[in-house]
Amino acid sequence: MSSNQVVVIGAGLAGLSAARRLRTLGIEVSVVEARSRVGGRTEGGFTADGTPVELGGQWVGPTQTRMYELIGELGLETFPTFNTGKHVVQLGGSRSRMASHRGAVPKLNPFVLADLFQGLTRFKRLADRVPLDEPWTAPNAHALDSQTFETWILRNLRTSTARAYFRIATEAVFSAESSNLSALHALFYAHSGTDLEGLLSVDRGAQQDRVVGGSIQISELMGAELADSIHLGCPVRRIEQGRDRVVVTTSAGEVFHGDRAIVTLPPTLAGRLEYGPILPSWRDQLTQRLPAGSVIKLCAVYDEPFWRHDGLTGQAASDRGPIKVTFDNSPPGGTPGIMMGFMEAGDGRAAGRLSVSERRAAAVECFVRYFGPQAAHPIEYIERDWMAEEFSRGCYGAHFTPGVWSDYGPALTEPVGLIHWAGAECSSVWNGYMEGAVRSGEQTAEAVAAALG
Amino acid sequence: MSSNQVVVIGAGLAGLSAARRLRTLGIEVSVVEARSRVGGRTEGGFTADGTPVELGGQWVGPTQTRMYELIGELGLETFPTFNTGKHVVQLGGSRSRMASHRGAVPKLNPFVLADLFQGLTRFKRLADRVPLDEPWTAPNAHALDSQTFETWILRNLRTSTARAYFRIATEAVFSAESSNLSALHALFYAHSGTDLEGLLSVDRGAQQDRVVGGSIQISELMGAELADSIHLGCPVRRIEQGRDRVVVTTSAGEVFHGDRAIVTLPPTLAGRLEYGPILPSWRDQLTQRLPAGSVIKLCAVYDEPFWRHDGLTGQAASDRGPIKVTFDNSPPGGTPGIMMGFMEAGDGRAAGRLSVSERRAAAVECFVRYFGPQAAHPIEYIERDWMAEEFSRGCYGAHFTPGVWSDYGPALTEPVGLIHWAGAECSSVWNGYMEGAVRSGEQTAEAVAAALG
Repeated sequence: MSSNQVVVIGAGLAGLSAARRLRTLGIEVSVVEARSRVGGRTEGGFTADGTPVELGGQWVGPTQTRMYELIGELGLETFPTFNTGKHVVQLGGSRSRMASHRGAVPKLNPFVLADLFQGLTRFKRLADRVPLDEPWTAPNAHALDSQTFETWILRNLRTSTARAYFRIATEAVFSAESSNLSALHALFYAHSGTDLEGLLSVDRGAQQDRVVGGSIQISELMGAELADSIHLGCPVRRIEQGRDRVVVTTSAGEVFHGDRAIVTLPPTLAGRLEYGPILPSWRDQLTQRLPAGSVIKLCAVYDEPFWRHDGLTGQAASDRGPIKVTFDNSPPGGTPGIMMGFMEAGDGRAAGRLSVSERRAAAVECFVRYFGPQAAHPIEYIERDWMAEEFSRGCYGAHFTPGVWSDYGPALTEPVGLIHWAGAECSSVWNGYMEGAVRSGEQTAEAVAAALG
Repeated sequence: MSSNQVVVIGAGLAGLSAARRLRTLGIEVSVVEARSRVGGRTEGGFTADGTPVELGGQWVGPTQTRMYELIGELGLETFPTFNTGKHVVQLGGSRSRMASHRGAVPKLNPFVLADLFQGLTRFKRLADRVPLDEPWTAPNAHALDSQTFETWILRNLRTSTARAYFRIATEAVFSAESSNLSALHALFYAHSGTDLEGLLSVDRGAQQDRVVGGSIQISELMGAELADSIHLGCPVRRIEQGRDRVVVTTSAGEVFHGDRAIVTLPPTLAGRLEYGPILPSWRDQLTQRLPAGSVIKLCAVYDEPFWRHDGLTGQAASDRGPIKVTFDNSPPGGTPGIMMGFMEAGDGRAAGRLSVSERRAAAVECFVRYFGPQAAHPIEYIERDWMAEEFSRGCYGAHFTPGVWSDYGPALTEPVGLIHWAGAECSSVWNGYMEGAVRSGEQTAEAVAAALG
């Protein structure tokens, strides 16, 4: 009597969640991971004094029910993202402060505000009507998928400040330019994560809570449970399938056998593996069309979070980069002060060509601009260029370019023989987020278990 | 005394042209090709009676000066694409015939015709102003690159028939939907190949001439000259570079050493190789954003080209697929009659999920609709689904999705250390065509030779 065996490729949140769920269903797993660590697009680090820092995905928020459950199951705790005081807003060259209780909408002149509200209302009305399992069946889907989100912005907002707001929001959420995305994808994605305002917010939004000690522990603790089944430092090169077996080979020649395989890599990397037989064209052409976003995440460490003493949240939103969005990423005790910034989309692409010291200087210049001269001399600078990571090649997630949902949507999660696809990009709910990764991993595990009978 | 050595990856027109030029410059070459044949996206086949058929790129036309020269150098000859009689045009459910001397513009009612002419004129005026070496510096480049070509069509054409014409043209030229392309890319590409009307035309256009015996002979004859340097059936897996040497390894473990490497693969496949050190993010993220088009090329063979007896050219243009564009692809003597059709873009993607016999039936249905019941019973059916080709994964070429020219344009041909990039997609002149492939191969060879001193 032999039990079923599944090979899971990738030990990020999706892969670990899939493996864990398969185990509870009595199925043996091998998790094969390219990196020498678990966690994928979540990653932990430490400051010189040993304070944990988060280099990848980190936040959880309302309606991410599975993440809060999982954090609890693993014995971890959350704490609220620091959000007391005022935000710094720089639009059109002027700098202002905005009370954090205003949520994601800054104080603006009445004409701009009216424009912004009608735009957000219109966006939300359309987004709410996009069916999450089949975005291509939304009302007017073809027209929305045939235009870029930038075209949508230009058509639906009249003031340059409200347009700038939508563009900054796009970069912050997608790490892509509004010109890169299908408008239908922007609507789907917002609906997938409840709504755009939630995606941009701290209180009652996607940035509401953090994990004490760092989000990487979620993967580390799941990894510890699965330790005897996880193979680190094993980049998969090839997946062969016969009628009822898969054979997974790594670049060093290790071989893993299974009844099924679950590939949890980001689409663009899943498309680079060798497959025997080769993948059908509808699958291969899909992964050619789902590029990863462009982002460098960085933090500057200070003795204290000095901005708090000035009545600031540490959050800035600006239309001038290379850092347009910042957060207070200090640990629960508040010391040291950790100021975090993202270089996203075009800013991230340009910054990816700079040296670390040039990027550090550019980052500090932004922090000084937002929070004053005290930001000028951090005691430490830590960064992760996710575009330069061999086993991610971009973050946060993949985006759908125009027309791709219409022609390739069903190919996103459709298994190819014995190969199933999972990952943050495969989830209809909280697509692109940690919540989506875990949901996708667990759902795919259930589907594989059902297929194995 | 050791001479320089260059490893050329890919034995399509670009790779063979590069290798041939390097040799004339006194540089040793190894050409490493995944397929068991030369020619890449050109391919030859035969009907049951031994008539050559062309399964990939095949036409040459005015201003493709290097192709005509090369064809002459190799002792080959061209003959005109059959273009005598009337074309069949089916738009909006009605079928009409159109004299071939009218070029690429069908007979239409005066309102539609006026709309179409103003649209073509406006398109040409914009296209002519796109600098071929730096499309992102065109007037209004950012706005044009931020919208899909479909958005441009909707804004600049008013009648549904004129819009349909532009959409059919887009599918025929790009094997992609107008929604998939950046408007700037559509303009660049047309200018790169002189102008849109030329891209669509037979007489005085890109489909003007064919090669007697088939276009594959161009590659076969160049390949024969280089025979001792070409390694077929060797898919490259990895390229490592040190300070002054490259090491190219195939999936079977063969190793080729060189002073430089030239990668001539389509962008999406070039991005799938393993590189040591890994490619910089600006290059990797570029190839994530240049998907290959979607096309199945097919032909039905008849005893005679019966459409000629009906006064027809064999060319059809229709807004109803799956074949929207056809050509008479008979050999110079006219026997057998070979009717060729393309299933492109969305039609090609959908057809890629069908069986060969289903596609054959769909093709014959189209041919009967365009040319009458005599088309119902071909004596032979031959096809090539280029999306399903492991070593192409789409045709005709790659297209730029919105925003990609703006943010990644300079990365297209910029060498990475000792690795240079060539191919039809890398050419500023006749980008995507055989002419572009040869020009790019030769220019890159010159650049490599210059770099080697």
